[in-house]
Amino acid sequence: MPDPFVHRLRVRYAECDAQGVLFNAHYLAYIDHTITELWRAAYGGYQNMLERGVDIVVAEAQMRFLGPARFDEEVILEAVVTHMGMTSVTSRHRFRAGDGRELLDATMRHVFVDRETGAKTAIPDWARAGLKPWHMPGPAS
Amino acid sequence: MPDPFVHRLRVRYAECDAQGVLFNAHYLAYIDHTITELWRAAYGGYQNMLERGVDIVVAEAQMRFLGPARFDEEVILEAVVTHMGMTSVTSRHRFRAGDGRELLDATMRHVFVDRETGAKTAIPDWARAGLKPWHMPGPAS
Amino acid sequence: MPDPFVHRLRVRYAECDAQGVLFNAHYLAYIDHTITELWRAAYGGYQNMLERGVDIVVAEAQMRFLGPARFDEEVILEAVVTHMGMTSVTSRHRFRAGDGRELLDATMRHVFVDRETGAKTAIPDWARAGLKPWHMPGPAS
Amino acid sequence: MPDPFVHRLRVRYAECDAQGVLFNAHYLAYIDHTITELWRAAYGGYQNMLERGVDIVVAEAQMRFLGPARFDEEVILEAVVTHMGMTSVTSRHRFRAGDGRELLDATMRHVFVDRETGAKTAIPDWARAGLKPWHMPGPAS
Repeated sequence: MPDPFVHRLRVRYAECDAQGVLFNAHYLAYIDHTITELWRAAYGGYQNMLERGVDIVVAEAQMRFLGPARFDEEVILEAVVTHMGMTSVTSRHRFRAGDGRELLDATMRHVFVDRETGAKTAIPDWARAGLKPWHMPGPAS
Repeated sequence: MPDPFVHRLRVRYAECDAQGVLFNAHYLAYIDHTITELWRAAYGGYQNMLERGVDIVVAEAQMRFLGPARFDEEVILEAVVTHMGMTSVTSRHRFRAGDGRELLDATMRHVFVDRETGAKTAIPDWARAGLKPWHMPGPAS
Repeated sequence: MPDPFVHRLRVRYAECDAQGVLFNAHYLAYIDHTITELWRAAYGGYQNMLERGVDIVVAEAQMRFLGPARFDEEVILEAVVTHMGMTSVTSRHRFRAGDGRELLDATMRHVFVDRETGAKTAIPDWARAGLKPWHMPGPAS
Repeated sequence: MPDPFVHRLRVRYAECDAQGVLFNAHYLAYIDHTITELWRAAYGGYQNMLERGVDIVVAEAQMRFLGPARFDEEVILEAVVTHMGMTSVTSRHRFRAGDGRELLDATMRHVFVDRETGAKTAIPDWARAGLKPWHMPGPAS
């Protein structure tokens, strides 16, 4: 079994809401930040992907919020690729606090698109190969 | 059949990403803005709810992104309450552009919590009654 | 003396920080939202400006924070153009709460740039004319 | 002469606007992120400060935007304390890109307030001592 891709983010003051915890929409942003880092590891970064003529858009998100992330707390984000289809990639994202508390369990589906036309396009071989180290097929959530 | 609750938001420049469209995490924020307005209509606003000793937290989100919302475009957000359980409220959110294009179809589950302890609490009668005008039971999505 | 350009924004939950008030960086975003509306009134909107080949970038900001803006509070934003130079426009922005409390007094300097090259460019005549109704020369702050 | 306090931030996709560069309001947020780290180094973090009964609010900001910060670019943020008055601290913030380009030169004034009453309060001795290593008196900008 491969290890998940791991990224760490510290909760910023500006990201907390009046409840003093990470505002819900920022969880989706944190997933995006993690995917940016996953792309860097998988195929040299987002810019590199654009230069090869493809872009990626979010198609679906399923999120279960399991506990609050507090200001200044470091969040450990683990990502695995659970499915690579013809044009889309499904990934699972788990957030934990430093003390082990579970914060989020999410499944995302991203679609590869042609950078110029915006139309769906097959996942390029280099992208498929780049993501392989974190490909852990299985039930999404 | 009741009418959905309708809110309108114009896409701000700061909310657009380098693709020139509303960044994905802001869709979740837009749902939050809509729910703030729904609460205002349903029971006099969020502050009013806090003063009665309850708060609300997001438990689940399921989102299907159907098309991009562009800078300065007005988005029409329609919300209905699809289920009121013992402690949680499920709502469905559809975003459309002014020209009719579908942008998002999402289902949210919020949980009522005691403001002091943070523990789940039964939906108060006044909250249940307040949401009733937009209660449209049915399959969530 | 001309009237200032007036825009109103309600403080969103996601914009509040753990102090329960509008986070400082969002004041700068609010100025940006106001300027978007000023451009709409002055010359048909930002997109229209881009299509004529010019863009605008922020060069300077001077802000005095006079009091907190609270969640769900409506903020009244007044803008006047205090100076139109060769390539830059200086504007003053005052934020007040509905109850009259002063929230912010800011001065911004924006520079017109060629959309393609990014180089400074003279303020086009149509832009100068469009801003004229809100031009109130005087000491900036 | 003391060395400035240095923090590094990578520009996130969600922080870029449709011009493909860091949106102007996020520069103010970046200063806030830097100050959070400065506080950690100076006196054990923001929470620690709150527990001692004081909080800090922004009173003034002066910003000169010198060049765009691009997506995924690492920004080097240097901060020095230029003045410690009775109740307020003035700091200077310079942002540079990895290739040396200057991005921002800003001066901030923060005021210490009593956490309970919100009233201005004298800078506590422990705070004054904690900031001393980065105190570099001089013209702010």
